[in-house]
Parts: sequence; structure tokens; C-alpha cells
Amino acid sequence: MTTAHEYARANAARFREQLNDFLRIPSVSTDPERTGDMQRAAEWLANDMRRAGFTTVEVIPTAGHPVVYGEWLGAGAAAPTVLVYGHYDVQPAALEDGWDSDPFEPVVRNGRIYARGSTDDKGQAFAQVKAAEALLQTGQPPVNLKYLIEGEEEIGTPNLGAFIAENRERLRADVVVISDSSIKEIDQPSIHYSTRGLTYLELEVMGPKQDLHSGGYGGIVHNPAQALAEIIAQLHNPDGSVAVPGFYDDVLPLKDVERKALQKSAKSEDSWRSETGVPQFWGEADYALHERIGARPTLEINGFASGFYGAGSKTVLPAKALAKISCRLVSNQEPLRIFELVRDHLLRLTPPTVRSEVRLLAQAYPAVMDIEGSAMHAASVAYEKGWGTPPVYERGGGTLPIIADFQRLLNAPVILMGFGLMGDGAHGPNESFSIEMFHKGIHTAIHFFQEIAGV
Amino acid sequence: MTTAHEYARANAARFREQLNDFLRIPSVSTDPERTGDMQRAAEWLANDMRRAGFTTVEVIPTAGHPVVYGEWLGAGAAAPTVLVYGHYDVQPAALEDGWDSDPFEPVVRNGRIYARGSTDDKGQAFAQVKAAEALLQTGQPPVNLKYLIEGEEEIGTPNLGAFIAENRERLRADVVVISDSSIKEIDQPSIHYSTRGLTYLELEVMGPKQDLHSGGYGGIVHNPAQALAEIIAQLHNPDGSVAVPGFYDDVLPLKDVERKALQKSAKSEDSWRSETGVPQFWGEADYALHERIGARPTLEINGFASGFYGAGSKTVLPAKALAKISCRLVSNQEPLRIFELVRDHLLRLTPPTVRSEVRLLAQAYPAVMDIEGSAMHAASVAYEKGWGTPPVYERGGGTLPIIADFQRLLNAPVILMGFGLMGDGAHGPNESFSIEMFHKGIHTAIHFFQEIAGV
Repeated sequence: MTTAHEYARANAARFREQLNDFLRIPSVSTDPERTGDMQRAAEWLANDMRRAGFTTVEVIPTAGHPVVYGEWLGAGAAAPTVLVYGHYDVQPAALEDGWDSDPFEPVVRNGRIYARGSTDDKGQAFAQVKAAEALLQTGQPPVNLKYLIEGEEEIGTPNLGAFIAENRERLRADVVVISDSSIKEIDQPSIHYSTRGLTYLELEVMGPKQDLHSGGYGGIVHNPAQALAEIIAQLHNPDGSVAVPGFYDDVLPLKDVERKALQKSAKSEDSWRSETGVPQFWGEADYALHERIGARPTLEINGFASGFYGAGSKTVLPAKALAKISCRLVSNQEPLRIFELVRDHLLRLTPPTVRSEVRLLAQAYPAVMDIEGSAMHAASVAYEKGWGTPPVYERGGGTLPIIADFQRLLNAPVILMGFGLMGDGAHGPNESFSIEMFHKGIHTAIHFFQEIAGV
Repeated sequence: MTTAHEYARANAARFREQLNDFLRIPSVSTDPERTGDMQRAAEWLANDMRRAGFTTVEVIPTAGHPVVYGEWLGAGAAAPTVLVYGHYDVQPAALEDGWDSDPFEPVVRNGRIYARGSTDDKGQAFAQVKAAEALLQTGQPPVNLKYLIEGEEEIGTPNLGAFIAENRERLRADVVVISDSSIKEIDQPSIHYSTRGLTYLELEVMGPKQDLHSGGYGGIVHNPAQALAEIIAQLHNPDGSVAVPGFYDDVLPLKDVERKALQKSAKSEDSWRSETGVPQFWGEADYALHERIGARPTLEINGFASGFYGAGSKTVLPAKALAKISCRLVSNQEPLRIFELVRDHLLRLTPPTVRSEVRLLAQAYPAVMDIEGSAMHAASVAYEKGWGTPPVYERGGGTLPIIADFQRLLNAPVILMGFGLMGDGAHGPNESFSIEMFHKGIHTAIHFFQEIAGV
């Protein structure tokens, strides 16, 4: 009897051809002119999943782009159920953005498939579909399969939370697997077990009722750009910590054992230095660089603008100044609570010479995944079987709001099973996906299903 | 025999018609498509000055737009010589900017001529030309006349300094009169006897080599927007004074007698409040509002920009941040010395986690005019004769670089003899010039020439 792994190896070339067909559909979710392509990509994927052997496959409309949902529940009620998440939508891409070839005509160079969506996330989601196909076509998979591939990840997943809440029963699973991230190096698998949350706000400082002539009024009006700068300058302590009262109240401290484990996966200072190019690092001295990013919250100025900033000089005394400010959060910080703390502090720091307005723009929960649970153990074994090397554990600095949604709404552990590599160039020109990673991903996913079932 | 004043009254309607013809020429100095109109305006003015009775009138080319220069030296070497300065170029204007009528087709409403350049500066310069005409056509003027009307004031007078330096002998005068400003109220003439200088620079703070993902790197990189804000926040002391070491070293203190005199022309707090709309004033508490503007230097943030500041949210950690910073200077501050002091301070305040660059963009000297000299006395008498009320003295907050050029290059006292009114809307839509001010201006100029000559 052919094993799933043998099936996957025997069909490797066809899998790649199919991935190329999938990549040719320009499913750019943010582009209204691509609505037809979005539908086409969803239908294409649904048909592929039907051929793979899923028993129920639907393209389900939402308020935005449709969700593709496929099920196979043949393992029975006693077997575990795995919910796999991915997305079929991609970032915009055009040749003139710096691509060396048409972003929607995949080409292979040096063992990599170059195309928009190759790593983010069509390639990774498709690896999961092909793992299911290998199991379905070679006999009964050891677990029940539920695949949820959405079409709005690149525009902030506006409708999936509601979709999950409305379909709680149907989506119920013992573990959720998300393949939409990267591992450290091709020879060293890694698992992100935490992501940071987000509170994004804007602060507007208003002074005079209109822009003034800096000669006619300079000296009696508190310049809003200056006032904004004076407020911003009070948001951090000299040690790099955030100076907002109560900001750290709900932060889970890093345990010593965890710090030691994280040390194993820590990137070198030299790598950080060459990636950032900064003359000197900054931040909380009590924490290593990777800890500051993975386990500590931040308050960041994402941008600001006021008055005149073009070429040359204009002697304006601006009427207002705007700053975009975001906090990356760690468990158990609540996004809305942090917004309130920061807002109150900003208003407190505003002198009576100007007025301030603070507006909440976005929020997302942080998430920590249990590294000692059985799901994580299965993932670890699966990676080790796929790679020949056990994975290291990392804390991510970015935000994946969907994790907290799955945790909260389905009450299930979540595993980030990334098949991408740092350097794939997601969102940029010449995005690519390692062919080796694609195939290793398929085998690792098969191993994971087998491990979870205890097969 | 007809006096100059009678002549001016008898020809008032014609003077206005001629001014309208002058205003119809769209002499927008910044617009390359208006180069022909610039030449046409210069020629039109030169011809009018020839008809007025100037003996030598030339349209003199410069590296930019031409200078119109007219002379009448018939008063003889023993009589004083007055150099009159104005400009025939105007700011851009288009109906769609909010004009109620074509900016280059003058219309009269409520005793005002609405047209671009009506007050700034064609109307004021032309009042001076018509004063000369009245004196020239009614007999010998009591002073020698030199009229210098340039065509580049609205683009920063880039070539006039060199022109004056090259024509020092020819332009030599006992007093320079500039009619390119405004008086307080139509019933209360006023004379600005000081203007502030300017040092304009930009500060660029650079952190990472490119924009970073705030999730992937936030916490280890000193955010350049934050660093810029932290630098800016250190540029003022809590009392509103500028915190740059040495900044005030060359500032001439206000004498008590001068403070008392200035008090007479001081605008009420209510006016300042309604003009600015600020919730509370700001600045050096030891100085009255009009003193902070007229007699104290400032350091102003004219604008800044960094990262993302559009609608919505983008989680970028910006690579750099830029601020435009300008200082208004008072005598005897040197623009270049102030640049060096501010630059050195900015570099000193820059932490080792980022890099800073400081670039000088513009500079202009402050100027103080002698309020006790004979020229100022003549101007005061002239205003009193023209208005029936003696003028009050004011310090202006703005910058007129040409004053210091005249003072330095010609070593002559300068008088700002403004015929405009606050509220004329110079540079904005619906710029206008009071017909009463036009005629009062002509008579005041005649009185001034007579006073200077002791007639």
C-alpha cells in the first residue's frame, strides 16, 4: 500500500504545476477590479479540494471576499479534529514595483518559485491542501480535517471573526494549525509560540484656528508641532520603558526557564545590526534584543506630520500636528485597556496652550500558545521528522489577530506551522517560495496529522 | 500756481484708472509662463515713470526678472536724495482659489480695489510714483528722486542684493523709503521700526537603513520620529525661552522708554486671541505679547514629517524623520552665528542611537530703524499731515531682508512707509487696497519729500 508520504513524493511535480496555476490568478483582495479574480481563486481552490477528496467543499460568501471551507470527517467522532487556516488572497504587485518577472506568471530560479503569493500564503496553504490530498488519496486520514482558507487576510481579516463566531459548532476542533509564517533558517525549523497584540491610535494636537505666519505670531502661540514633540518625548523613560502609568500592569513576566529556551533561538546581535543598520541598539537594557521584540510591549511612533515639510522653506506656524502611535502588546495586555491608559496619559500631558484629540484606529489581542501541550508536542515531532532537526521556539514580534480569535471563539490550542523562510520577500517585489520548503511543508503537515492522532 | 497736492487731487480719477491698467498685467514672478507679462509690467511702469517726468528711466535686466529704475536729480547736489523701493511682481492668483472676481480684472467694491497686487505692492509702489508725478508736473520737487522697483520680491528677492552692491554709487541716497507694508488701522497710522531676521534650517534624524516592520523590530531600535521629538522637546525652557546656549547673547534688550512707547501701539489681548483662536497664550512671561513678537527672537517648528501619516493605520517603524526649524532674529543676532549655535546644539542633543544632519536653508538679517533720526521725524510729520493723527511706532515680527541690505550697502536710514491695511488680504484670495489709503499714501509721500527737504 502506498503511504501518504510516497504519494506526496510521487506527485511532487504535479503539485508544483497546480501551485503555479493557483499563483497565476491575481487574487489581490484590496483591488476592487480584482473581485472577479478573487471569486475565481476561491472556486479554483474549492475544486482542487474536491478532487483531493474533501467530502464537503463550499465557497461561502461573506460581507467581503468569500471563505473557502472544506471538510472530511471520516476519521470519526473519537479521532481528533484539526482546523487548518490559510488565505488565498495576496498583496498587490506590478512589474514596475521592481519585479524581475511578471508577479502573476510563476518562474523558477535557483530552486525558488517567484510569484506574488508564493510564500504568503498560497504556497503554504496549498502545501496543507496537498498534505490532506496525500492522506485522503492513500486511505483514511487519522484525523478529521476542516480547512478554512479566507480571502481577506491582506486587508486585515475584517469579516472572519464574525464568520468564526457564527460557525462555532461547525468549526469546532481540537487544534488549529495556521500555515502563514516563516521559520528561522532552512536547516533549523522554529515555532513561534507567541505574537504581540496591537493598539493603534492617532493623536492630533490643535493650536491656532488656522496656519499662522511665523513672523506675525511666533512667540505668543504654543506651536502645535513643538507641543506634540513635547508630549511624545514624555512617553518613554530614559531606560527605554514606556512611561504610561499602568502600561505594564498586565504583562506576564518572562520565566527564567523560558528565557533560557529562547536564548537557543536568539539571532546574533550582528544579524540584528545588519538588518537594521542602526548605529546603536535602543530599548530596555534588562532584556535581550529578542526578548524586547518577542516578550515586551512597545510604544512606537509610526509617523507624524505637521505644517510644511516639502523642499525648501516656508515660514508657517502650523495650526495642528498629527501623530500615529501604536503599541505592540504582550499577554495579558488588553488592547482597549491600553488604549484608555495611553489616551488618558496623552490628554494629561497636553498643556492648556493647545488641545488634543486621541482616536483609536485598530486593536488586536496578543497571544501565547502553550509550548507544553500535546498539540505543540505533535508539531515539534512533525517538524523533527520533516527536517531531521527538532524545532527551536521563538516569540514573534508581529501581530496575528486571528490567533486570539481562534483561541477565544473555539477554545482550541493554536499552532503556527510556518513553511516560509525569512527572506522570502513577502509583500515586496520578487516574492518567492523555496521549492524544498514547499515539499518539506507537505511532509511535515502529514507527520503532524499522524502525530496528533497518535498513529 | 498748482501745488503737488492740488495736482494729485485733480488727477485722482486718472491715477486710479492707471493703477487698474497696471493691475491687469499678471506679473506673477514665480510662474515661468508669465515671463512675458513680467517684462510687460516693467515696461508699462517705466513708460508711466517717463510720462511722470523722471529724466532717466531704465528697465535693467538681472539674472532673474528686470529692475525698473528711474531718476530725477534736478534738486541739485545740496538737496537730499530719497531712494524709493517697491516691487511690481505679485503672488500667484486664480479664480478657483476663492476669488469673487477675476484677480487680474480690478473691480471696486465698498471703496476697495479688488485685484492681485492691489496692496502688495503695485498699489503702494504706484502711490509713490504718483507722488513723484505730482511734484514733477507742478514744478521742481524739493529732493532728488531715485525709484527702484524690483520684480522678484515674491520669490525672495534673489538678485537685488547683488544689484544694489553693483550699483552702490548710483543708488546712493540720504534715506530709503519702502512702501510695502501695512498700518494698524485706517484712522491710526503706524510705523514699523524693526523687523526680525531669519535663520531657517532643516534637521533630519536617521535611524534604521530603511523603514522597518514595527512588529519585527519595535523595541530594539530608537524610533527616529521619537528621537526627533525628544530633540525638539529640549529646544525650549519651561518658561518659553529658547534653550540653545548662546542664543540670546547678541539680543539688544528693550529699553524701558521703548517698552512704554510700544505699549501705545499694542494690540489688545482680545484681538490676538480672536486672530489666533488659541485656548491660552504661550511664550516668555516677562514680555508682553507684542514684545514677544516684535522684540524677542523665537525658535519655531515650521513642520515635520516621518513615516506614515495618511488615513488609517500602518505599522511602520520609520527610517527617518525631518523637521523644518526657523528662528526669527532680533538685532544684533547674526543669522549665520545663530545657525551654528542651533546646529551644534541639535547635534549635541542627538543620542548615539540615531544620526542627525542639519542643513541651512535660508537666512536674513534683523533690522532696527532709528526712531530718533531726522528721516523718521520727517516720516512722522508726513503721516500726521496725511492722516491728521501722528503715527504710533511698532516693531514688526516678520522679515524684510532688503532693509538690512539697504542699511549695510548704502549706509542710509530706512523708513517703512506702509500704505496697506491689516486685512487687505495680501497673498490670499480677494486681495484689495483701500482707495482712501491709495490717495492718503500719495499725499503722505509728497509731505515726506517736502519734510525731508525742510520745505
